[in-house]
Amino acid sequence: MYRGASRYAGPDTACLIMAEKDWKECIKNLKGVVLDMCGVLYDSGEGGGTPIPGSVEAVKRIKASDLQLRFCTNETQATREKFVAKLQRMGFDISVSEVFSPAPATVAILKERNLRPHLLVHDDVLPEFDDVEKTDPNCVVVADAADKFSYQNLNDAFRVLIQLEKPVLFSLGRGRYYKETDGLKLDVGVYMKALEYACDVEAEVVGKPAPMFFQSALTDMGIQPQQALMIGDDLVNDVGGAQNFGMRGLQVRTGKYRPSDEKHPTVTADGYVNDLAEAVDIILKHRGQ
Amino acid sequence: MYRGASRYAGPDTACLIMAEKDWKECIKNLKGVVLDMCGVLYDSGEGGGTPIPGSVEAVKRIKASDLQLRFCTNETQATREKFVAKLQRMGFDISVSEVFSPAPATVAILKERNLRPHLLVHDDVLPEFDDVEKTDPNCVVVADAADKFSYQNLNDAFRVLIQLEKPVLFSLGRGRYYKETDGLKLDVGVYMKALEYACDVEAEVVGKPAPMFFQSALTDMGIQPQQALMIGDDLVNDVGGAQNFGMRGLQVRTGKYRPSDEKHPTVTADGYVNDLAEAVDIILKHRGQ
Repeated sequence: MYRGASRYAGPDTACLIMAEKDWKECIKNLKGVVLDMCGVLYDSGEGGGTPIPGSVEAVKRIKASDLQLRFCTNETQATREKFVAKLQRMGFDISVSEVFSPAPATVAILKERNLRPHLLVHDDVLPEFDDVEKTDPNCVVVADAADKFSYQNLNDAFRVLIQLEKPVLFSLGRGRYYKETDGLKLDVGVYMKALEYACDVEAEVVGKPAPMFFQSALTDMGIQPQQALMIGDDLVNDVGGAQNFGMRGLQVRTGKYRPSDEKHPTVTADGYVNDLAEAVDIILKHRGQ
Repeated sequence: MYRGASRYAGPDTACLIMAEKDWKECIKNLKGVVLDMCGVLYDSGEGGGTPIPGSVEAVKRIKASDLQLRFCTNETQATREKFVAKLQRMGFDISVSEVFSPAPATVAILKERNLRPHLLVHDDVLPEFDDVEKTDPNCVVVADAADKFSYQNLNDAFRVLIQLEKPVLFSLGRGRYYKETDGLKLDVGVYMKALEYACDVEAEVVGKPAPMFFQSALTDMGIQPQQALMIGDDLVNDVGGAQNFGMRGLQVRTGKYRPSDEKHPTVTADGYVNDLAEAVDIILKHRGQ
């Protein structure tokens, strides 16, 4: 079902970049798995999206093993509760406490640093910020606001930042674009760059690939980076982000995967697998489960 | 009225950074002056804006001297004809042939390189592109589109670029923001950066601070950079751009000027003056006119 040698395997063959013995060692030491969600568990689109074949079962199989499981998503177009409810309706065995998403992480940071945000975020994620003080803002939080990224709204956020002595900008993710059923869509990173340039600041990114974000999932499992494996469809933010933090990372050939990812100039996954189901097959087989 | 020594003079005192003898030498060799328009001649705002006190008279005084005069603007919210007509109504002695603006310069480049643009520009500047072929676009032109910078419109421009084998993006200026009577407004540079990041390309800038743009005004006067002085309110694009091209540059403390400009880490104007009227006073006094 997979092979350990060839680097540029065809799209039908799982391809592990590590040497066979390193891979065995890695799997043996594994205590937890972190899964990206969109593009790994399901494809987004009208009506909320559809599960990727085999992924509902794959999640069940990890949960039935001795591995811990958490989910790390940069999803910011819904509250975590509504987002998890959507996945449950698709058949996934998943609960809110297992999901790490940027909005709750940002709320924690805002409270810790006594910051009052001006929010440029999707309406559906606003409830996450319900109990955060927002009057007289002293920072800006930008997330994937989609159609709310009007000139007026971006200008309003800019005006808040530029009048601060030391502008503080949080960006929930730094993606360039994503794919929906009707084509490519600009993601939050593009508007983060716009505000960074306008105000000559560097945004603090909350979400993947920020190390703090992976850390929160691992702290929750009580394990170290070298005991954890990330599985995602975004080579740079999922796989590269996890690797920078000391985790191993597999890329699935679903979601936003593009064949050119396997020749990326700076990020090389520890392995490329066709989908989550195949990844779980390989992991559990190596663990003799 | 001014002093030659102190670097960080208060806002009421003109401050020349050059040594007194260098300044005298510069003024003596001067053959032409290039003026930025918005923030130097007038403040924009409702009804087209209002002249900055003393600037109508200052333009007249330069024209009555032995100095040549041209105007270099990054204005792209109107055709050059309509823009000049507005300035004439404010009382300025100015003609279309004296004004260098990015749209006509871009049209020349598009025709020379057989490029068909997708335009993300203000409706009022569209007529400048009337005789440019625009079907099946193979490049994107972005200018200050203001309220037309919707998510949908930026996404449309992005989709044109991302499907090109080698995306070509022109930006008419690279300003961060400008000031209108109702406050600061995001400028084209912010959206240029957004598209650059989304598509991993570098835009070709037409307008200040591109050297080609200053060159066109100087070629028209038949003078060399060291014989020309730029006066603008934008430290980086007007003053820094002109200096990079070998001209001298004064910053006026009107328009988008901010006191922090006088401590900018990379750009130092050859002098800071309160307004255009004061600049012209100093220049003509040194020339004994």
